[in-house]
Amino acid sequence: MKPYAFGVDIGGTSIKIGLAKTSGWLFETRKIGTPSDLSAESFLLSISEVIKQRIHARGLKAADFAGIGVGVPGPVDEKGVVHGCPNLGWSEVDVKGILSRALDIPVQVGNDANVAALGEMWQGGGKGFSNLVMVTLGTGVGGGVIVDQHIVCGQYGSAGEIGHLHVSDTESEPCGCSNFGCLEQYASATGIVRTASRLLCVHPDVPSILRKAAPLDAKIVCDGARAGDALATSAVESAMDQLGKALAMVSCVVDPEAYVIGGGVSLASDVLMPPLKKAYRRYAFPSSRHTAFKQAVLGNQAGIIGGIKLAVADAKGNKEK
Amino acid sequence: MKPYAFGVDIGGTSIKIGLAKTSGWLFETRKIGTPSDLSAESFLLSISEVIKQRIHARGLKAADFAGIGVGVPGPVDEKGVVHGCPNLGWSEVDVKGILSRALDIPVQVGNDANVAALGEMWQGGGKGFSNLVMVTLGTGVGGGVIVDQHIVCGQYGSAGEIGHLHVSDTESEPCGCSNFGCLEQYASATGIVRTASRLLCVHPDVPSILRKAAPLDAKIVCDGARAGDALATSAVESAMDQLGKALAMVSCVVDPEAYVIGGGVSLASDVLMPPLKKAYRRYAFPSSRHTAFKQAVLGNQAGIIGGIKLAVADAKGNKEK
Repeated sequence: MKPYAFGVDIGGTSIKIGLAKTSGWLFETRKIGTPSDLSAESFLLSISEVIKQRIHARGLKAADFAGIGVGVPGPVDEKGVVHGCPNLGWSEVDVKGILSRALDIPVQVGNDANVAALGEMWQGGGKGFSNLVMVTLGTGVGGGVIVDQHIVCGQYGSAGEIGHLHVSDTESEPCGCSNFGCLEQYASATGIVRTASRLLCVHPDVPSILRKAAPLDAKIVCDGARAGDALATSAVESAMDQLGKALAMVSCVVDPEAYVIGGGVSLASDVLMPPLKKAYRRYAFPSSRHTAFKQAVLGNQAGIIGGIKLAVADAKGNKEK
Repeated sequence: MKPYAFGVDIGGTSIKIGLAKTSGWLFETRKIGTPSDLSAESFLLSISEVIKQRIHARGLKAADFAGIGVGVPGPVDEKGVVHGCPNLGWSEVDVKGILSRALDIPVQVGNDANVAALGEMWQGGGKGFSNLVMVTLGTGVGGGVIVDQHIVCGQYGSAGEIGHLHVSDTESEPCGCSNFGCLEQYASATGIVRTASRLLCVHPDVPSILRKAAPLDAKIVCDGARAGDALATSAVESAMDQLGKALAMVSCVVDPEAYVIGGGVSLASDVLMPPLKKAYRRYAFPSSRHTAFKQAVLGNQAGIIGGIKLAVADAKGNKEK
């Protein structure tokens, strides 16, 4: 195994590039702004220039690198082609092809949520598990499914779209995906606020500290629940009931060893985890009731660490062939 | 690769043993009654005796066999231990260990629904796909998840328990698993009959040919729908709406290339498939709306053919190491 690898996490506002030993020791991280005025090819070539520069600055050469693992915010197929990244204004882009041609190092590409799940499995909240599902509770609800230490991509790159599990037959507002009743409409930051707002309207006589907050956000709702506010508690329990129900269904499909919960909302895990576990156990198929729940620990670095793991796993796979 | 393999399908009423070339040609099938008065070990040793006898009768020897793949009706872990088979009265049984010691041939063990899914992928309705989910519509609803040509077992052997996806928040009767609102309560043969019976009660003035049937069964309901009976059509559409919704959720988890629909109920695929596909597309995440739907074709032989594939895949895996 060659001694070094890069992990690259391409996001809508910044690109993070991590340089690591293949053993897993991340010793350099760079963050650059996402360019908004470049074509996809020029964008990727600018990343390859930064990588070349870092290799040179460290007195290394391309032949010292086992690989580069890249996470992108869109569905990725097995050939490393991404099929549309709304945040970057990309349609179909051959990320692997472009970076491989620019750099004489093997490149692997994955969906950012899936790559982050791989990172949490390797060095984060999911360490020690080979089969896990990561759930990211942020503005939306993202996910990544890992089976036998490998990302499950799916035919259209839609495996792990946990946020779009159908959890309600009675929803009247559409989800961003155009369906009605998706998990993301309830368990995301936006969803928690929406539920709290609905409760405030439906129960105008119930006193709540949430009434003073303008604008309301998920942190305020979780803080309210922590302080014992009945309406905030009800909003949090309702969101976690939907999440628990959805994860019980995920267990009927892949029956993972653990769920790793990450994303900004999960910072309130003291408030969220008890009702989440309770709901999960209520809905789960009997033999899956004791699946572990862990908190993600890598934060914004999950993507680069997962990228490094992607590169290392591929290099190991190539070696075995 | 050694030239021969056995596939064994252990069921509650019969045991099927298939002898095949590892290329896939099944040239002998034996069916024996499931013994009811033996301990699990004696039961498995009686199977090993039949296998030894068939090897001898064909003028072969153990060294000619790449392996034996066995499907059992219960959750199986990675070590080939089954954790409870209610149909056989077994608690924890080391199927792989017992058969391996009795026969000098490598043994692989899987859950029967998962092994059948592997069989359909190899030589049946899922031929040509590497990522599929098989759904068996019978007395209950079973399933098997295949990712990259491998069975996904799950931590507790509960991966592919499609029948226990939660599809209704308003169910008042418990499922066999003790939860409320499982897919199996609607899309199984029993579920279709239950829905039709409910509709007959709720709409006593609606004429229906189903009113003449005593007892009602799923075939009569499907035949009624085919003949244009409004109430039977409504029952079938309701069942397929729940199944389509459930499979749309499965796509959010593993996003397979195809669903392969099997089991006794699926014989009425002309009546079931149109409303199933329509419901699936309505609920599916946009990028997964065009997943293929195929009918299973191997029937009762899916288990032995899958068993042979399990043995062959393992032998290939061993060879590559």
